[in-house]
Amino acid sequence: MAKLMSGKAVADALGIQISERAAKLKEKGIVPTLAVIRCGAKPSDLSYERGILKKAESLGIEVRVTALPEDADREMLAEEIVALNRDDAVHGVLLFRPLPEHLRKYQTEICNMLSPAKDVDCMTDLSNAGVYEGRDLGFAPCTPEACMELLKYYGVELKGKNVTVIGRSLVVGKPAAMMLMAEHATVTVCHTRTVDVAAIARKADIIVTSAGAPGSLTRDHVAPGQTVVDISINWDPTKNNGQGGITGDCVFDEVEPVVEALTPVPGGVGAVTTTVLLGHVVSAAERTV
Amino acid sequence: MAKLMSGKAVADALGIQISERAAKLKEKGIVPTLAVIRCGAKPSDLSYERGILKKAESLGIEVRVTALPEDADREMLAEEIVALNRDDAVHGVLLFRPLPEHLRKYQTEICNMLSPAKDVDCMTDLSNAGVYEGRDLGFAPCTPEACMELLKYYGVELKGKNVTVIGRSLVVGKPAAMMLMAEHATVTVCHTRTVDVAAIARKADIIVTSAGAPGSLTRDHVAPGQTVVDISINWDPTKNNGQGGITGDCVFDEVEPVVEALTPVPGGVGAVTTTVLLGHVVSAAERTV
Repeated sequence: MAKLMSGKAVADALGIQISERAAKLKEKGIVPTLAVIRCGAKPSDLSYERGILKKAESLGIEVRVTALPEDADREMLAEEIVALNRDDAVHGVLLFRPLPEHLRKYQTEICNMLSPAKDVDCMTDLSNAGVYEGRDLGFAPCTPEACMELLKYYGVELKGKNVTVIGRSLVVGKPAAMMLMAEHATVTVCHTRTVDVAAIARKADIIVTSAGAPGSLTRDHVAPGQTVVDISINWDPTKNNGQGGITGDCVFDEVEPVVEALTPVPGGVGAVTTTVLLGHVVSAAERTV
Repeated sequence: MAKLMSGKAVADALGIQISERAAKLKEKGIVPTLAVIRCGAKPSDLSYERGILKKAESLGIEVRVTALPEDADREMLAEEIVALNRDDAVHGVLLFRPLPEHLRKYQTEICNMLSPAKDVDCMTDLSNAGVYEGRDLGFAPCTPEACMELLKYYGVELKGKNVTVIGRSLVVGKPAAMMLMAEHATVTVCHTRTVDVAAIARKADIIVTSAGAPGSLTRDHVAPGQTVVDISINWDPTKNNGQGGITGDCVFDEVEPVVEALTPVPGGVGAVTTTVLLGHVVSAAERTV
């Protein structure tokens, strides 16, 4: 039976350290503060927001939510970001994306208005350059960083190991590849045009899947001794007796009996992401001291 | 016998297209112009400079060389870059790196003073972000782009192919991996901590080596049917009866009889790099029209 790498334990351990750092800042009169900007009231945004508010409260981090109307225009959003850039009491800014349809064409431009110093969710070009160059220019995207924290927590050696990353998105696959490479892993990035993902994955020591395709990682992709990190969060309408629920890329019942360790979904990497985000807010606040 | 992929043919083909574009700009009264900044007079810088001057003349591109003293200080160099940013007659700027020892600690800061619109040699963070994100934010580094031009010229299919890149530098290995991935190749990046480079390389369809280690790619690394691109330019003091000469990573006599196609060193990717750089200057000039 494979070892189940739960995210909760990782988030708890990180949380202790983050709340201690937040408390030290408060002694200096600084309350680490995250500003959340939401356009409209999408259920997935609201759910993420509730998670952030709850976790932030437990860690001693303040959150200010700016709820803009669903039909907010480019100028409204731009003004909000510029104002937050100037506001010394705000250390990090999170803008829920994707933006509403009518703002989609401005998304890159709007994201890049944010000061990289406050870019706790890696939405600016400069933060991306930092991930790629391996320098602290902004902050890394929270999900792949949560994957790295999880691997570290469970003592998974990366140096000299062969890692297959499935997915090449800018939000997960590419940054995960960069961070794994920085830890001296030998990384292969598979994607939709890869001819035989299963054959490549089977030969890896570690598989990191972010395909976003439920059921895409099967018995055929894995081998004994491997560690599998399932980063994807997919919606499966058939789960929970048809009420729906989240699921990863792994066919859990096929993969679990074969590999040495794997993450559950839900309760794996996803359980660490919000804590990583709040850790960035504290780091951003520390840099202002 | 393997097909020898000479760089000259690639540079010639690119050159025809570039000089036509330069001529069109001149009809509009714009002379595409590159400014070269050199500190001191290192033989390798002078040699590169001569190559640029000669090639630029043949393509109808103007080059202005600013030769600063070897002991130029940070302010002198910064002023030069700021002046070139403001000069509308200059479309691209090349700063020879590495800078002299006493300026090394300012190198990143100085590089980032250049306007990304004139960053024809990818020395700013924003150009790096563009390579990583797959967006036109500045320009890609010339050497890995020359590798891509060479593969394209010789009709080497990339989509769905397995490519092993050896080396993870920001100047060659990482950007080559990003560009190959953008062409839908499945890329594995090997480096000094990779446990068995030969075993990984043997399974690839294409090997791109930028290890910078003469003799590092041997019979053991290759298999029949492969295409090998040797990007490294190493100095071999034993070559030419002890006068010295440049050499790549490949042990040519071992690799050539096995693979399907390979690049020579000298005369391979290196022969294309300057033309790519000058192509960037013309592109930068075109964007100002």
